[in-house]
Amino acid sequence: MESSKREKRKVGLIGCGAIGSEIAVAIDSSRVNAELVAVYDACRERAYTLVSRLNKRPMIADSIEALLASDTELIVEAASQQAVKDYARSIVEHGNDIMLMSVGALLDDTFYAELCSLLERHGRRLYLPTGAIAGIDAIRSVKHMLKEVTLTTTKHPRALTGAPFFKEHRVNLKGLKKARVIYNGYAREAVRLFPANVNVAAILSIAGIGADKTKVKIVADPRARRNIHEIHAKGEFGELYFKVSNVPSPSNPKTSYLAVLSAIECLSRACNGRVSIGT
Amino acid sequence: MESSKREKRKVGLIGCGAIGSEIAVAIDSSRVNAELVAVYDACRERAYTLVSRLNKRPMIADSIEALLASDTELIVEAASQQAVKDYARSIVEHGNDIMLMSVGALLDDTFYAELCSLLERHGRRLYLPTGAIAGIDAIRSVKHMLKEVTLTTTKHPRALTGAPFFKEHRVNLKGLKKARVIYNGYAREAVRLFPANVNVAAILSIAGIGADKTKVKIVADPRARRNIHEIHAKGEFGELYFKVSNVPSPSNPKTSYLAVLSAIECLSRACNGRVSIGT
Repeated sequence: MESSKREKRKVGLIGCGAIGSEIAVAIDSSRVNAELVAVYDACRERAYTLVSRLNKRPMIADSIEALLASDTELIVEAASQQAVKDYARSIVEHGNDIMLMSVGALLDDTFYAELCSLLERHGRRLYLPTGAIAGIDAIRSVKHMLKEVTLTTTKHPRALTGAPFFKEHRVNLKGLKKARVIYNGYAREAVRLFPANVNVAAILSIAGIGADKTKVKIVADPRARRNIHEIHAKGEFGELYFKVSNVPSPSNPKTSYLAVLSAIECLSRACNGRVSIGT
Repeated sequence: MESSKREKRKVGLIGCGAIGSEIAVAIDSSRVNAELVAVYDACRERAYTLVSRLNKRPMIADSIEALLASDTELIVEAASQQAVKDYARSIVEHGNDIMLMSVGALLDDTFYAELCSLLERHGRRLYLPTGAIAGIDAIRSVKHMLKEVTLTTTKHPRALTGAPFFKEHRVNLKGLKKARVIYNGYAREAVRLFPANVNVAAILSIAGIGADKTKVKIVADPRARRNIHEIHAKGEFGELYFKVSNVPSPSNPKTSYLAVLSAIECLSRACNGRVSIGT
């Protein structure tokens, strides 16, 4: 038992895009106490490109079934919400722990409840990284007392273009001279109108008071050089305010560097964690 | 194995003061998936007072040996740094996981390293709650890239009186008309001069770049109604800023409510944790 605890955990990866690749490289460079045994990507080409970069080459699975047939203990999803919906259940039923990047999929309450009961039944664990924000440790600690939680995301108009929100609302993004609140609502709706924000809004909702009570503001700021997430929370315990100014990931401008680093640290804790630092 | 994972964890408690009592009550009221099997306090009277408040009465151990002789799986320390130094090693050697409130004890690098190798040898886990601050999830994620981390603590002069710092420095606290930075240095020294701040400075140091590089500022503000902790962190990933305004714990004005809630949530995650929310 003691020695087994010291052994590297056998990890499988679903999704070989930018984030999946960063995680794979972190494992390959021994930054995580794990062994990447198998990878899967709907685009086999992408899986090949990733594996060719690694020193210890994992098996390339040509289906989820093949991935689950390998002797993995923990599967990392870095693909899409759809992949979570399609595969999470069988991953757990095959006796794997699971770490999700596409946390937004858990805003489907029925699906989340079903996944939780499967985890219970199979004695497995679900790991959800904090992602591109911070302070989920404190939010979880005060969740029973939260009177109000607001996520304010500020981006350059350029970074907002194309969001479904603009199909219903005419906003002259290019014409903006100064910062403007373009959306003010709740997480449940916000993630539909601004899918780029989904994981941040989802983890905050899940850790705190849920997607129907968590407020979300979207601000377009022509002077914004970075994506900024702010969280305000209040309750009997006092007040919390977090501000995170994110630099894009070197490997993928659409992802915050912090989101990638957070995933690697979350996996690291899941794979070793003799010392659990932080609530 | 599956069923065993669902069973309540058998917890022992060292320290039956305000924080220890809050944790015991949280377990007793089933907010934590644990069973409190034994408690110890150097002052036996205090242990009695606590146990008399509980529905499920734990055994009152009259020594650490007696506590460890009971069938605990996880020991919670809510006593003092000295208790950590005196007992943490034998707790782990007896095959227990351990959760520490007096995190400051780990700033003794030799002791911390020794404890870590014991955890490794015995396959046990050490849990360190975030405490009265927030964002340890993000700090851990970026620790390899941190260029700078500063903890600024603002308190009413009243809350600072008596700190060892004032033996060496004459400051007319009572005479302060507005906020004033009274200390600006590093965590290693700050925890000696302002022991009341030790756990906050310690967890931030341990999660990030260590006590010799983590900056600490202490501000006395006659208008301050709450204890405020601010954390600034910078690096290639971007910037983090956290501000926590803490209300005192209802049961102990010297402790932040958040510190108690954080400990209960940390224990809760350690005892159940099918779903690990946050990095």
